[in-house]
Amino acid sequence: MRRIKLEVAYDGTNYHGWQVQPGKTTIEGVVNKALSELLQEDITVIGASRTDSGVHAKGNVAVFNTVSRIPPEKICYALNRYLPWDIRAQSSVEVPLWFHPRKVESKKTYEYKIINRNIAVPTERLYSHFVYYDMDIGAMEEAAGYLVGEHDFKSFCSVNTQVSSTVRRIYKLQVEKEGYLIKITVCGNGFLYNMVRIIVGTLIEVGRGRIAPKDMVKILKGLDRSLAGPTAPAHGLTLSCIEYDMNQIFKE
Amino acid sequence: MRRIKLEVAYDGTNYHGWQVQPGKTTIEGVVNKALSELLQEDITVIGASRTDSGVHAKGNVAVFNTVSRIPPEKICYALNRYLPWDIRAQSSVEVPLWFHPRKVESKKTYEYKIINRNIAVPTERLYSHFVYYDMDIGAMEEAAGYLVGEHDFKSFCSVNTQVSSTVRRIYKLQVEKEGYLIKITVCGNGFLYNMVRIIVGTLIEVGRGRIAPKDMVKILKGLDRSLAGPTAPAHGLTLSCIEYDMNQIFKE
Repeated sequence: MRRIKLEVAYDGTNYHGWQVQPGKTTIEGVVNKALSELLQEDITVIGASRTDSGVHAKGNVAVFNTVSRIPPEKICYALNRYLPWDIRAQSSVEVPLWFHPRKVESKKTYEYKIINRNIAVPTERLYSHFVYYDMDIGAMEEAAGYLVGEHDFKSFCSVNTQVSSTVRRIYKLQVEKEGYLIKITVCGNGFLYNMVRIIVGTLIEVGRGRIAPKDMVKILKGLDRSLAGPTAPAHGLTLSCIEYDMNQIFKE
Repeated sequence: MRRIKLEVAYDGTNYHGWQVQPGKTTIEGVVNKALSELLQEDITVIGASRTDSGVHAKGNVAVFNTVSRIPPEKICYALNRYLPWDIRAQSSVEVPLWFHPRKVESKKTYEYKIINRNIAVPTERLYSHFVYYDMDIGAMEEAAGYLVGEHDFKSFCSVNTQVSSTVRRIYKLQVEKEGYLIKITVCGNGFLYNMVRIIVGTLIEVGRGRIAPKDMVKILKGLDRSLAGPTAPAHGLTLSCIEYDMNQIFKE
C-alpha cells in the first residue's frame, strides 16, 4: 500500500466545487471516478482545499492510497487520459502513509483577478471579476498591509462557519496592477470559509473609496463579519498552490 | 441616416463563427438581433472579418446604418445591455456612409497562443492550442522571417478558396516565448481563408524539427497547399485588431 499526493489543476466553471455532493458534478467526484477506473480499485481522495463552486485551481492537492505498481510520478500522466480537459493532474509523488493534506502544515497561495476597465473582456469573464469604477490601487495596497501577520480573522469569515479558532497567519497580501488587470495574491498558513473572497471584497470597497485603508484595523478588531465588505464572486479566484515542507515530511 | 463603426470583442467558444448561418448561433446573428432591439430598427451589420467557429476576437469591426439619435460613442454601452457576456461591444464611432470595412484598406492583427509544456492548463484550454513536444523557438523565428513582405500565399490558403488574387503583404510575424506560453503575432493587409492557422501549423512543424526554417521559401514558391503544415486549431486564434487610417477616411 502506498500513498500518492496529486497536484490537480481545474477550471471550476462547470463544477459544483471540489467536494462530493449527491446528484452534483464535483471535481473530487470526477477525480475519484477517474482514479478508480485507472487503478481498478475503489479510490476516495482526501483533498487539501474544498474550493467553492466556480473557483479555479492551478494546484489543489489530493492524496489517496493504492496497491498499484505504476511508478508514482507516472500516475498523473496516466490519470489525465481518464479526466476531462477542464481537470488536469499536474504531478504525482509518493508520500508517507500518515501524510494528511489538511492536517500537515502548509502555505496556501490564492490569486484573485479583477478586470478594471469601462467595458468587460469576454475571454476573461470566467476567470476574473469585472469592476468598472475607478480603483485607487495605493489605498488597496495600504489596506492590504494591515492584514499581514497573525490575526483573528473572524470579521473575514462567513458567519455560519464552525471552527475552533479563527486565528490565521497571512504571510503575504499583494495588490498589483498591470494594464487593466488587478491581481491580488494572498499567501497564508490557512484560510477560513470565504476568507479570501471577503478580503478581496473589502479591498474593492477600499479601492472605490467606500472604506478608508486605516479602517481595516477597526474591522479586524471588531471580530464581526458585518464590518467587512461583501464576498467577492467565486469565479475571480484561483487556488495557485499549496506548499508542504517535503524535506521535513520525508525525514519524519 | 448615419453609419456607425463598432469594435466587437467575443469569446468564440459557444458560436458557429461570425457569419449568419440558418439554424446556427453566430456572433453576427446575435449582434444584429441586439442592435435591432436597441435601436428599434431592422439592423444588418457588415463585418470586417468572418472569423471561423471557435476563433475569438478582441476587436473585430462591423458597420451598420441607423436613423437613431443616440450619440454614436454611447451606442456601444447601450448595446452591451442587449448582448450576452461573451460578446462585448468595445467602441462605436460614426464613419462616412461610404465606409465599407472589407473594401477600405486596413491592417489586421491576429494572435495565436500555444501552451507548450508537458501537461495542459485547464483554464487556458479554450483560448490556446496545447503542444507537449519540445519546440525550437529560434527555428520558428527564422522560418517566420521568410514570410514577411509581399508574397503569393497560395500554399498557405485552404484549397477550396475562390479569390482573384492570393498575393498578400505581411508586415510583421513574431514568435515570442514567455514561460510555457508561445505567442505568435501576425499583422498584414489581409489574410486568405485559414491563412493564419496554416502559417501557425507550419511554424509548429518547424518548431518540432519536421520542416527546416529555410524550407519556408520552397513552400512559398511551390504555390501548393500540400507543401505547408496542417491547419492549427481554431480555438488558439484571436483577432486582435483591425486598424483603418481614420484621418484619411474623414478627409475624403
